[in-house]
Amino acid sequence: MARLVTLVESGGPGVREVASALAPYAGHAQVIGLTGSPGVGKSTTTTALVAAYRREGKKVGVLAIDPSSPFSGGAILGDRIRMQEHATDPGVYIRSMSSRGHLGGLSATTPQAVRVLDGVGCDVILVETVGVGQAEVDIASLADTTLVLLAPGMGDGIQAVKAGILEIADVFVINKADRDGADHTLRDIRSMMALVTREPNEWRQPIVKTVAHKTEGLEELLEAIGKHHSWLAEHGELQRRRTARASAEITAIALGLLRARLDVTDELASAVAAGEMDPYAAADRLLG
Amino acid sequence: MARLVTLVESGGPGVREVASALAPYAGHAQVIGLTGSPGVGKSTTTTALVAAYRREGKKVGVLAIDPSSPFSGGAILGDRIRMQEHATDPGVYIRSMSSRGHLGGLSATTPQAVRVLDGVGCDVILVETVGVGQAEVDIASLADTTLVLLAPGMGDGIQAVKAGILEIADVFVINKADRDGADHTLRDIRSMMALVTREPNEWRQPIVKTVAHKTEGLEELLEAIGKHHSWLAEHGELQRRRTARASAEITAIALGLLRARLDVTDELASAVAAGEMDPYAAADRLLG
Repeated sequence: MARLVTLVESGGPGVREVASALAPYAGHAQVIGLTGSPGVGKSTTTTALVAAYRREGKKVGVLAIDPSSPFSGGAILGDRIRMQEHATDPGVYIRSMSSRGHLGGLSATTPQAVRVLDGVGCDVILVETVGVGQAEVDIASLADTTLVLLAPGMGDGIQAVKAGILEIADVFVINKADRDGADHTLRDIRSMMALVTREPNEWRQPIVKTVAHKTEGLEELLEAIGKHHSWLAEHGELQRRRTARASAEITAIALGLLRARLDVTDELASAVAAGEMDPYAAADRLLG
Repeated sequence: MARLVTLVESGGPGVREVASALAPYAGHAQVIGLTGSPGVGKSTTTTALVAAYRREGKKVGVLAIDPSSPFSGGAILGDRIRMQEHATDPGVYIRSMSSRGHLGGLSATTPQAVRVLDGVGCDVILVETVGVGQAEVDIASLADTTLVLLAPGMGDGIQAVKAGILEIADVFVINKADRDGADHTLRDIRSMMALVTREPNEWRQPIVKTVAHKTEGLEELLEAIGKHHSWLAEHGELQRRRTARASAEITAIALGLLRARLDVTDELASAVAAGEMDPYAAADRLLG
């Protein structure tokens, strides 16, 4: 499994054969995304969820995406260190990935890594990433269910206004809920949600309070995830999300193939740098 | 200027005419990137630099890139609020940009916004972004000189190991240097730097201590930026960086044009989602 993930990550020879061989086994796994600012307890929550799903006898895959590490694949071993209680369990596969790649965010290789874990038999795949910008959006498009983690006292004030988390969250998790300010965070989420008009049959995000390191609130979280999954299936949304995911994956691969063929010559780049040509004209010439 | 930046950001009609008209005026401005974790004082440092360059009579442009706001261009006004002391100065142009866009990071429209500011006569362009992932790499490829800001006591421990900042920093800035732990941060940077073997003629990043809100250390910072700029010019690096920037800009525009032509049909996406076709075969069919 590790070698297959490395292969799709590197995009080396054989990647097409792997994709082709795994294709018929796709679509089995439940994909759960976890996102949130540094320090909210993503890894702790992931670890608790792994334990819970293992108790149900499920095979679990974990992809910890590290967008702070564009240069070195897996240089930050923190997540793996924190998850070492599961490291020797053959029913758990844990992998750190960097989000490097010219296409940005997770779009380039994470969907294919999910495809591998799915294809080889993981029942649940947890994809964890720091909640910043494109990676956050990508995780929402990748997952069946996206958990947005918050913690009391973090992100108050101007810096905290996070446009868009309402659009990506399927379940809100207030972790470290035993700390002061948990109810304040709860109210903040509720007032954000109150600003949005919803159709009667739309999903309304539940808000779950947890203390992940004590596994408090974990049952409620599992229930919320399960309910959302059922809702997706009943409303045709599971199929729609997975088709959208496949579409994004196809586009990313196609753009990667096209990018590999784009070879900007020094002459062209120098002409633009010197102001002799504008970059659109240069792009036209390149594509021509 | 504001309308031109909006135009290149939106990619609407007329963008080619603008690019073509501005091309001959490119290459004048000194582009300085500022990156670092939330809370290190990027906006305060930017504000202090704006004031300093204004005192030299230079026209200054500021692009504050907000990667936490993928959905809403300019939703977070924090930077603009904090910089309001310069808001009425006609020699300063301040603009918040979101880093949304399918290509991720800054690659899609920021280089073109820099091109506009450059073309209309900014002498110095400060590009500020939260230091996470692709945005951080992109800023280094965009700027002549990249400042990596750190602050004492932030980012200790496992989460702090930031692979790659050595590769993008031209100048290290330890802001809030009046706080406990500044020397510890200094030692951390020095020991990181000691791990890298350098050629005698390579640039060695200076480490500047500042207290930006009191403008302490600002003269030293300006001097370090100036020295780096001279070093770039003397070693042919300025030309090399700007050619690389033009190359990345041409590629991003070309990929944007190609992406607009890629139309993944529902049938194709459904076939991949259902496991009837692998995504590479689908990408081939799409490109075919």
